[in-house]
Amino acid sequence: MKAAIFKEAGKIEVGELPNPIIKEQTDAIVRVVLACVCGSDLWYYRGISPHPVGSIGHEFIGVVEEVGIEVQTIKKGDFVIAPFAFSDGTCPNCKADFQTACVHGGFFGAGNEGDGGQAEFTRVPLADGTLVVVPGSNFSDETLASLLTLSDVMGTGYHAAVSAGVKQGDTVAVVGDGAVGLSAVLSAKLLGAERIIALSRHPERQALAREFGATDVLASRGNDAIKTIMDLTDGIGVDAVLECVGTNEANQTAFAIARAGAIVGRVGVPHDVEVPATGTFYRNVGMRGGPAPARAYIPALLDDVLEGRINPGRVFDFTTDLDHIQEAYAAMDERRAIKSLIKVGTM
Amino acid sequence: MKAAIFKEAGKIEVGELPNPIIKEQTDAIVRVVLACVCGSDLWYYRGISPHPVGSIGHEFIGVVEEVGIEVQTIKKGDFVIAPFAFSDGTCPNCKADFQTACVHGGFFGAGNEGDGGQAEFTRVPLADGTLVVVPGSNFSDETLASLLTLSDVMGTGYHAAVSAGVKQGDTVAVVGDGAVGLSAVLSAKLLGAERIIALSRHPERQALAREFGATDVLASRGNDAIKTIMDLTDGIGVDAVLECVGTNEANQTAFAIARAGAIVGRVGVPHDVEVPATGTFYRNVGMRGGPAPARAYIPALLDDVLEGRINPGRVFDFTTDLDHIQEAYAAMDERRAIKSLIKVGTM
Repeated sequence: MKAAIFKEAGKIEVGELPNPIIKEQTDAIVRVVLACVCGSDLWYYRGISPHPVGSIGHEFIGVVEEVGIEVQTIKKGDFVIAPFAFSDGTCPNCKADFQTACVHGGFFGAGNEGDGGQAEFTRVPLADGTLVVVPGSNFSDETLASLLTLSDVMGTGYHAAVSAGVKQGDTVAVVGDGAVGLSAVLSAKLLGAERIIALSRHPERQALAREFGATDVLASRGNDAIKTIMDLTDGIGVDAVLECVGTNEANQTAFAIARAGAIVGRVGVPHDVEVPATGTFYRNVGMRGGPAPARAYIPALLDDVLEGRINPGRVFDFTTDLDHIQEAYAAMDERRAIKSLIKVGTM
Repeated sequence: MKAAIFKEAGKIEVGELPNPIIKEQTDAIVRVVLACVCGSDLWYYRGISPHPVGSIGHEFIGVVEEVGIEVQTIKKGDFVIAPFAFSDGTCPNCKADFQTACVHGGFFGAGNEGDGGQAEFTRVPLADGTLVVVPGSNFSDETLASLLTLSDVMGTGYHAAVSAGVKQGDTVAVVGDGAVGLSAVLSAKLLGAERIIALSRHPERQALAREFGATDVLASRGNDAIKTIMDLTDGIGVDAVLECVGTNEANQTAFAIARAGAIVGRVGVPHDVEVPATGTFYRNVGMRGGPAPARAYIPALLDDVLEGRINPGRVFDFTTDLDHIQEAYAAMDERRAIKSLIKVGTM
């Protein structure tokens, strides 16, 4: 089969890999319809995180081709969304809806566990716990793109908002204007935030942030952003902060603009971040978050997509196919694209 | 009037200070009935934190002697509980029930703002926002001691449990067996925890922890404690952790035993604590907490005390009077006492 293959930093090519087969009887084989490139895939592309030569990608939707004999709820022909982590759905962490900590689980396309999803086919371990069947058929391209976001980016933005405890009427700040940050804006809106302050300096991202529900867009960063947000909130700070970057500067901004008692919902993977243990303490500022249990959020967000309440697929502004996978990465790496969609197959 | 006077580290004497007077028309003067010594007062006593020469103490209950003309809800003769921080009750932070971040508030007995409460009388700023009237009269010594704990220690233990999100049926670990840790055990029980693991190596504290609801008492610390608790929870960790110490070791233990998605509720003031930014992230472990908004909790906990559901005054195991204030500190400093009660006046 045709698949994206990570060769080395800066080089991801299309190539041939053996078709995946059922290894465990709880597996399913999925024929990929749409895949996409994640901001975290760029770490490998940029050589920041190591990745072995081989398949890559962890966001995909597709059609079930085959299932192991122990698979009970998923069947051949089902149109499914795969979250970026596979999970058994039955362990204590899955039952608590933290499937990214599943005691038998793992991650797609990270090079050491599950296969990659930027491929014509992929093996899905623990199919019953992992996959969510999408009801219906004949979806528009727009709906398909939105369904694809539930595998990671929209679930991750939503996790930031849920972790930060966003509730009706809140004033929320979103740090980061990547596809996750934009999804976090949309999630804050979905959870009833009244005022959403997005930090963004790119015109096209600012526009999408406003479309997703941002009421204020700030181009400033660091201390300037902190000062502006404190002024906007009469010196009190915001009710919830969604941290969608992961750098130390973004985290310091996030902690500084949180009002007393607020929570910073972190989904940006921390790189050299120092959490101010005392500064947060005296102001009762909390933090939550981590790798999003996307699996937990798919059922509800699926309804939101199918019933037209949200259109998170708007984050895709570059579309290509597997043959041009390197361009999908390059466009994001060079910030020409917010997020790249990859058309792999048909339904 | 007679008052405890901080002279220097290790030296807190009874002495004479001028009777407090109404300075702002929102003040009340309270005649103190009971006061006590807080673990945080020991920092001054031990020379760890600076404190000017003068009045000290921030936990007291008493009778209102006089009020300024702008005071509306509190009147002379009321029997009141004062939380350790004064607050206006009307600013955005107070309305959000984080009164320790009141924009016009401050702290009693810290040497730079409010007067101390280990005295015959004390001035209470912002009386309407700060004080809570206790209904009824003729309280037993036991009830009075429990009411006194609502000014700080019980509210602080309760804040750990609320911050950690303790709910019905949870398995909870409490790090710290001081009066706050013991109050945290009682609070976890009050909020419905099913299993409460208390870390304590002092027999008399272990006994009180069990009386307050601890189901498991561990004498181990650090890595040994982590291993034991992970074994006790089948490798998953606990649903909520209440951190009531503030040292780096206690915090590392707290973060390590939290299950995926759990929150560490911190009330131990952090001293040289490093929060593991990445370690917490990958496991979705959160943290909340800080100086307890004791004011927010007094109304509900007052009912719990008056209706006999909790008896937090059991943390007092040393009683003396103002004349022997130095012994009250020394007993706690030398770990002869969990917490010292000071009988100042009569109702």
